[in-house]
Amino acid sequence: VTQLRCDGFRFAAVSAGIKASGALDVALLACDAPATAAAVFTQNRVKAAPVLLSQGALKKSGGKARGVIVNSGNANACTGARGARDARRMASETATAVGARAEQVLVASTGVIGVPLPMDRLCAGIASASASLSPDGFADFARGILTTDKRPKVAQASVRVGGATVTLIGCTKGAGMIAPNMATTLTFVATDARIGGAPLAAALRGAVAGTFNAITVDGDTSTNDTLAVLASGAAGNKPLGAGDAAKLGAALTELLDDLAHQLIGDGEGVHHVVTVRVRGAKTAVAAQKVARRIANSPLVKTAIAGGDPNWGRILCAAGNAGVPLKHDRLAVWLDDVAVAHAGAVAPDFVEARAAEVMQRPSYDLVVDLGDGKASARYLACDLSHGYVEINADYRS
Amino acid sequence: VTQLRCDGFRFAAVSAGIKASGALDVALLACDAPATAAAVFTQNRVKAAPVLLSQGALKKSGGKARGVIVNSGNANACTGARGARDARRMASETATAVGARAEQVLVASTGVIGVPLPMDRLCAGIASASASLSPDGFADFARGILTTDKRPKVAQASVRVGGATVTLIGCTKGAGMIAPNMATTLTFVATDARIGGAPLAAALRGAVAGTFNAITVDGDTSTNDTLAVLASGAAGNKPLGAGDAAKLGAALTELLDDLAHQLIGDGEGVHHVVTVRVRGAKTAVAAQKVARRIANSPLVKTAIAGGDPNWGRILCAAGNAGVPLKHDRLAVWLDDVAVAHAGAVAPDFVEARAAEVMQRPSYDLVVDLGDGKASARYLACDLSHGYVEINADYRS
Repeated sequence: VTQLRCDGFRFAAVSAGIKASGALDVALLACDAPATAAAVFTQNRVKAAPVLLSQGALKKSGGKARGVIVNSGNANACTGARGARDARRMASETATAVGARAEQVLVASTGVIGVPLPMDRLCAGIASASASLSPDGFADFARGILTTDKRPKVAQASVRVGGATVTLIGCTKGAGMIAPNMATTLTFVATDARIGGAPLAAALRGAVAGTFNAITVDGDTSTNDTLAVLASGAAGNKPLGAGDAAKLGAALTELLDDLAHQLIGDGEGVHHVVTVRVRGAKTAVAAQKVARRIANSPLVKTAIAGGDPNWGRILCAAGNAGVPLKHDRLAVWLDDVAVAHAGAVAPDFVEARAAEVMQRPSYDLVVDLGDGKASARYLACDLSHGYVEINADYRS
Repeated sequence: VTQLRCDGFRFAAVSAGIKASGALDVALLACDAPATAAAVFTQNRVKAAPVLLSQGALKKSGGKARGVIVNSGNANACTGARGARDARRMASETATAVGARAEQVLVASTGVIGVPLPMDRLCAGIASASASLSPDGFADFARGILTTDKRPKVAQASVRVGGATVTLIGCTKGAGMIAPNMATTLTFVATDARIGGAPLAAALRGAVAGTFNAITVDGDTSTNDTLAVLASGAAGNKPLGAGDAAKLGAALTELLDDLAHQLIGDGEGVHHVVTVRVRGAKTAVAAQKVARRIANSPLVKTAIAGGDPNWGRILCAAGNAGVPLKHDRLAVWLDDVAVAHAGAVAPDFVEARAAEVMQRPSYDLVVDLGDGKASARYLACDLSHGYVEINADYRS
């Protein structure tokens, strides 16, 4: 793995003893000067303390950030007033360590919920991490945010905008939302692009719609989900026109798509990453509803796990999406193998060929509604014994 | 098991060779005279041929029925024009056999989908079943509608209305909607009550709301779900006033609640039937949304399977219900053991006591939203290895 760098940023991670395993559990991202920051957070009505803190910080700072402090192994969720205090202290200790104001620090936590943070160890970890910040520390940072993920997940992209080549590097964790203790999705992107807060937020909104907002392992949104982008401006590009902003947005989308695929693929118990493509819908919203319902159906997901081309379950799930359907126009493919046509079995259906597709580690599940021109895409995976194993037998 | 009878009805089931196992697979319910009939059907947009036929028949007959013909082992779903023809033929053959008009016969099918019915064997089965109709045939009937269910599920109730004692007997199948091939929920109730079509339909609507519409194994509604009530009038009760109609409705609710519990408990892979009770909600709709979300959350369901009092997952699922919540007022109990209070761990939480509750085959999971007086109830179960086993490894 080549070392990922991004001008204007330094990174570090240390083992502070929050995880019993001794693995890296405090990760710090620091920006040499105030970076433009944009972030999206969990839609869950029960939000962890660090999520509430980071939302407030972005508002107070006017979308500027000097650092992100992350701990793994403890989500600081459902921890009451003490949790809020602990999140504030994480921000203030980090701000002191990197010479910033507290509202310039974003905080993220992931891991077990309902348990207070071990603040002594955590604060020692913050001090130690700030002492080891390095432009080459991104690989450590990406490992420091993990919980039950099998491997770190990083991606990079670059794009020529405003007369300069701009770099984006990103990392994510989650074990696909399927990990014990509602291990959360945390994603961080650093870029050296010079860009204002409004266009950065717009680019982020555009990029998450088709990537991180279109993936599912089990349909559960955690209390801690956070996806933040920081732009240092160190690339020194000229102000971005609409065209260049779109190019940067496309690069961000590409980067997040890469991370989203890695996220699903790394879920424990996941053996197949399936791209559900719904087309022929009347509206994009209808297409997305059908795609999401198929991607979340336990009967479809167990069929994926078993490699069983049980196409009736796919039509059944589509029928449950709350979208009017013309039953006799529905068609289904697994990659290029037609399995259903006109709402019934495809005339040339050869089950062995469909079963062969379902052995692949990743494939497309295509549903045509025959009712329009809109389409949508959703990333899904299998529901396997591994999922039950991890989530039933793992102790919080 | 005592023999269940209901005046005015005869029942039978035969093995027609639709199931490879040789088990009973054609079941017939016949009413000596036209019975008042009411039914509810799947909300899925993809409806199987027998569902569409029965909906049409009830309309054409003005809510009168002389019989119900059921086959198990084949759902006659996603079978195109041929499936519609086959369902019509099931009705007409049954009508001839019992001396009724075709629109007086309801049809239900359950089992594998996308495969045409073996009509020769099925028609022979209808003839043979009609020849063996008996007032004592209900136990056979209840077995003849099963697919992967472990046991037949029957219930009875009686109530004094209109100067007469009225009997209700019912049966259901489904293996909890979790069976392979979208095995469907079919439920039939026979009563000797004399009652008009409108009050019977109203009683049914009232009875399903809190019973069959408030259970979930995996959130998937099949293409074939059918719940029909037939009232022969043989009890000879006087016309029912509002009070007696309510009493009959309560008896029907009790009967369906009994069957719903049996249905969830008989799901393969199900070891715990959990009653999710949400209270303290602003509205009944809000309470039901939260209860349904908790009951369907894979993370909650795997925690139930593992006996893990991971209360954070319960709050997380509640937060995902799309209902505004006051996080710091949320409280959770497992039976009488307090696990969460004011959005954090309960002060007197003893994990071993909570874990002990979760070993019970059935228990209550109570969530208080602290935000009002409305409540709702949902029946849920665990998501276990057994579920994955059956649905991943069973071939359609």
